[in-house]
Amino acid sequence: MNDGNRVLVKQIFQDAKFVRSLGIELTSFGQGWCETQIAVSPTLQQQHGFIHAGVLMTLADHTCGSAAASTVPEDRDVITVENKISFLRPAAHPVLICRAEVLRSGKTLIFVEAAVLAERKEGRVIVAKASSTLSVIPLNREGRQNMSLRTMILSSPVMKYSSDR
Amino acid sequence: MNDGNRVLVKQIFQDAKFVRSLGIELTSFGQGWCETQIAVSPTLQQQHGFIHAGVLMTLADHTCGSAAASTVPEDRDVITVENKISFLRPAAHPVLICRAEVLRSGKTLIFVEAAVLAERKEGRVIVAKASSTLSVIPLNREGRQNMSLRTMILSSPVMKYSSDR
Amino acid sequence: MNDGNRVLVKQIFQDAKFVRSLGIELTSFGQGWCETQIAVSPTLQQQHGFIHAGVLMTLADHTCGSAAASTVPEDRDVITVENKISFLRPAAHPVLICRAEVLRSGKTLIFVEAAVLAERKEGRVIVAKASSTLSVIPLNREGRQNMSLRTMILSSPVMKYSSDR
Amino acid sequence: MNDGNRVLVKQIFQDAKFVRSLGIELTSFGQGWCETQIAVSPTLQQQHGFIHAGVLMTLADHTCGSAAASTVPEDRDVITVENKISFLRPAAHPVLICRAEVLRSGKTLIFVEAAVLAERKEGRVIVAKASSTLSVIPLNREGRQNMSLRTMILSSPVMKYSSDR
Repeated sequence: MNDGNRVLVKQIFQDAKFVRSLGIELTSFGQGWCETQIAVSPTLQQQHGFIHAGVLMTLADHTCGSAAASTVPEDRDVITVENKISFLRPAAHPVLICRAEVLRSGKTLIFVEAAVLAERKEGRVIVAKASSTLSVIPLNREGRQNMSLRTMILSSPVMKYSSDR
Repeated sequence: MNDGNRVLVKQIFQDAKFVRSLGIELTSFGQGWCETQIAVSPTLQQQHGFIHAGVLMTLADHTCGSAAASTVPEDRDVITVENKISFLRPAAHPVLICRAEVLRSGKTLIFVEAAVLAERKEGRVIVAKASSTLSVIPLNREGRQNMSLRTMILSSPVMKYSSDR
Repeated sequence: MNDGNRVLVKQIFQDAKFVRSLGIELTSFGQGWCETQIAVSPTLQQQHGFIHAGVLMTLADHTCGSAAASTVPEDRDVITVENKISFLRPAAHPVLICRAEVLRSGKTLIFVEAAVLAERKEGRVIVAKASSTLSVIPLNREGRQNMSLRTMILSSPVMKYSSDR
Repeated sequence: MNDGNRVLVKQIFQDAKFVRSLGIELTSFGQGWCETQIAVSPTLQQQHGFIHAGVLMTLADHTCGSAAASTVPEDRDVITVENKISFLRPAAHPVLICRAEVLRSGKTLIFVEAAVLAERKEGRVIVAKASSTLSVIPLNREGRQNMSLRTMILSSPVMKYSSDR
């Protein structure tokens, strides 16, 4: 992994206010993988006292994004296209760990999967499993894309579907 | 929709600390559907200045859960099994609206989908589309399930897979 | 919709041997949507006497692909990136209908969803719901892409993940 | 794995006409996993000469189902609730192998994932990755469920959504 990727992965955590506000931390990463963790506070709960599905989805999505970012050429960045997550067990543990691994890093698309794990006395147990597709986009030299970039990528020269269903 | 469902849907919003902390509001609901909205503040952003995918996933998941809860018998509650979301456009609008609709409400499983929409001058535009499966679980009389309930539902009498991959 | 798209959609059905062997028929289409149907024969069953999930997935995937193809510029074609399908009801009806609609047609990615419906006396009932992402790829002048094309698109200049997990 | 599971997994292949017609073979299985393979014939192609996504989805779905079936109590069977599959590379190889592994086997739901692999000179390469949720249903003593069973499981006592969208 070159320095550009290293900087990009770190920026993805430094610059994402939402992720910082939840307390998600980057613990380690390499070419094609990333590990993060979160200390579970009461504010992250849903109505049954478990960690909200949205927290697990955020954790998985951001960790997948960072794993993907560790594989792109120097002038590229990534953005999530879609994400699926299965909730295998209720999560009510003090610390959750997420490990994302790139399955395939292509020129325009990157496929990543992530496991969310809880520490138990008897060992780590899987709490959720996610699979995500990311799009490779141009890197904004100031370190972040502005909206016009993604609009450029997504907008069709032919037509626009603006279904308001 | 009977009173039990009405109370359940409202509780799902009142008791979910994470959802309240993001500012997600219940705007309206009926039997088999639910609408919510969120005012987008800078804390909800990711590294490119867009709303974080995790916020959209939380919004969609919680709205799907409430739509599902509007359809269950009086002694039942719901919990998310899995969720998939596609990000159709970057979301950088001041207000996002989410509408979830139940596709099929069964005895043990409920299938729901949700659209996240942004208000533009030219009308509402779809930003994300989610599809989710929820499990119907016993309602805890104190208004929330404790973990043993979901553990009971998920734990196999035969074996336990605790893969830590 | 221009003639190029009309030809492309028709070719997608004529040239797909697997789809023809199942008896999937193109019934109608326009810009951004496609409708197909299948007459259910015993060979399409799974072990419980229902239509195999694989048949429904094939029907949904191919109809999504055609809807997407109706929206691309003249020198472009489409290929499925990922597909999710929920099975809402058992399907044991003589005829199934599939309707796919494009949610968003971008320069490089197209988002489509499809419903599989069964005719009942009391009206059409939804049997399955799918959501799919497709990639826009160059159109091979001879009417079909060869493998090197998709390889070109997916292969990273930087690295290759060949996980055999 | 007890004899009941062994019989069930074998039946899932013997009794699924569609799967036999594609030439999908059960190669090996154990408690919580299953391996299958398919010899790729021209009838399984789509319009670009690759194996149709529907074939890969059928292969993954059926192998996931069998892995799940290897974990249920003796009077139980399984049925697919939902399935997501990502297509990582074009598949144009003579033989494809699928390996499914159970992530979590619960009383009512089973979570499974599957990789579709192609043999290359340089080793096995991953072509597709699927994740699926299955429902645990009563086993029909005659070896197959009739439709009323699944209807019983899915039909709500409260309401029926028969959206024909």
